[in-house]
Amino acid sequence: MQKVLLIGFGNVGRTLAAMMNERSAHIKDIGLDFQVIGVFTRTRGNVADAQGLDMQKLLDDVSSHGRFTGPLTSISPLEACRELDYDVMAELSPLDVANRGEPAVSHITTALTRGKHAVTANKGPVAFAYSELCKLALDNGCRFLFESTVMDGAPIFNLVSRCMKVNEITGFSGILNSTTNYVLSRMESGLSMDKAVREAIEMGSAEADPSYDIDGWDAAAKVAVLSRVLLKGDVTPFDVKRSGIRDVTAKMIAEAEARGKRLKLMCRGRILDGSVAASVGIEEVDNSDIFATLSYRDMGVSLESDLLGTHIVIHKKPTLRDTAFGVLEDMISVFK
Amino acid sequence: MQKVLLIGFGNVGRTLAAMMNERSAHIKDIGLDFQVIGVFTRTRGNVADAQGLDMQKLLDDVSSHGRFTGPLTSISPLEACRELDYDVMAELSPLDVANRGEPAVSHITTALTRGKHAVTANKGPVAFAYSELCKLALDNGCRFLFESTVMDGAPIFNLVSRCMKVNEITGFSGILNSTTNYVLSRMESGLSMDKAVREAIEMGSAEADPSYDIDGWDAAAKVAVLSRVLLKGDVTPFDVKRSGIRDVTAKMIAEAEARGKRLKLMCRGRILDGSVAASVGIEEVDNSDIFATLSYRDMGVSLESDLLGTHIVIHKKPTLRDTAFGVLEDMISVFK
Repeated sequence: MQKVLLIGFGNVGRTLAAMMNERSAHIKDIGLDFQVIGVFTRTRGNVADAQGLDMQKLLDDVSSHGRFTGPLTSISPLEACRELDYDVMAELSPLDVANRGEPAVSHITTALTRGKHAVTANKGPVAFAYSELCKLALDNGCRFLFESTVMDGAPIFNLVSRCMKVNEITGFSGILNSTTNYVLSRMESGLSMDKAVREAIEMGSAEADPSYDIDGWDAAAKVAVLSRVLLKGDVTPFDVKRSGIRDVTAKMIAEAEARGKRLKLMCRGRILDGSVAASVGIEEVDNSDIFATLSYRDMGVSLESDLLGTHIVIHKKPTLRDTAFGVLEDMISVFK
Repeated sequence: MQKVLLIGFGNVGRTLAAMMNERSAHIKDIGLDFQVIGVFTRTRGNVADAQGLDMQKLLDDVSSHGRFTGPLTSISPLEACRELDYDVMAELSPLDVANRGEPAVSHITTALTRGKHAVTANKGPVAFAYSELCKLALDNGCRFLFESTVMDGAPIFNLVSRCMKVNEITGFSGILNSTTNYVLSRMESGLSMDKAVREAIEMGSAEADPSYDIDGWDAAAKVAVLSRVLLKGDVTPFDVKRSGIRDVTAKMIAEAEARGKRLKLMCRGRILDGSVAASVGIEEVDNSDIFATLSYRDMGVSLESDLLGTHIVIHKKPTLRDTAFGVLEDMISVFK
């Protein structure tokens, strides 16, 4: 039995919990048996049971009451990371750029220091503390995986580490923020930015704070993650040349369209004079370009490398299930 | 030291040999030291040396004389697989559909039966004998890898097996034959099919027998490989509903263009009523479709799955180095 500690029970955490139930037979076939022994949240209460929690009850609690109905535990998420008995911790709290990835960084640091595996869908810990967390995992004989941080669970980091052993990544470019791509697509069909952003929030696609999407912070955090992991650069979201979509107007979109182009929030990183040049900004992409075919919530990233050339990964219509899938794959990978 | 037996020294074999030299330091960093102890070919002679061959000399021989200048060995490729002392065999001979993947199937069967690892870029053995070869590898405690058979070395099979453990692939579609995609792109710029095919042959992109490309046999073999490995179907190239590009005319291309579409040789496979429906054929693809943005030698495949949704892998401007990269990655993977 593998004991799981969940930090965060928002959209991703609840989708993961449902997927673990749905796939329990498949997971057993792989030789694993996950039991969630604690779920710690900001707003829904905290629950723990060394024998394993009834996840369906917790899902029902949240959908009927918006919070856990108990019995609740009084210890904090950080205390849970420090004191509870678990084998892998899944950090699913939202990105917090202003606090440089905290409290998630402390949660993961605490788990790894105890030799417990940690997986996360939160970009913050990788964007702000990647080297430190990797060293902790190495020193304590455990693993730190984070596939769902950039492409909603579509394999990128595991792809490179497991399938490109002699290949050197030299740069990347892509569309990494679903909400802004959705907003730009809806503005192309005549919607105002405000209306399009409200739609994205109602779809549950936008970040908790939509300005994280609109002003390019979510994209910048993803660029920092890719730059640190794939290009080995010392890049935080604050080091990424960043502009969002706030200043995009219907006129700009129409003018681009008249030129056979689409406006896209493009993310870029490349090694330049030994350091990493990273940016997020609006570009006019020609209709014949692959990235121009990505509409609404589609995401994609192009990896430039020395042996494999240009390798592009596209994820169409990502959903919360994709993000949960990436976390579940990482939870399996730390044991297999 | 890992002793390597090479079967085939055509474009891929020679590019792999050069890449192994170029990357020897990187390979040593991974903890491996490949020594090629035999190279067996159809037309360039056969050489073997238990102490390791000088690959640069063999490359020079072929570029100056078109063949090895000796000392040659009199044993056959199959005898080499049966008798020589090696750790991994790389089968790089060309596809032979009419002979159901032979002699490559026998080469790999012989290696695996002896408990020697086998990797291949030849579609035939996977398209005609996948289950048998996997069982042999399992029974004899060795590995059989074939990343370069479908997407010129871009990770597909290793991606699915290593990064999608709980994900069920339910279907695929894509452009898998570079030569026909190149020919169609050149015909769009006004070239005749004959001229475009000659260009492809001069580029070394076409299969030895270009009718394998033009009539869809190479694509059908790739569809069979994807159907067997990803969809677990019992599909040979003969079971794939197949039509090539031979009947495509300038008029058809112009009419498609007038409709905002491009003609593409699309490969498809999906599970239908418990068995796999697989096809290769010309389709009109809308310009807004990702596959319409693939020009010249670009390739791409879309994987449909139950948890991850639609995951698309695109490889732009593939070269022989990509194919050699896939073989080298597989050679490393059997030991790591």
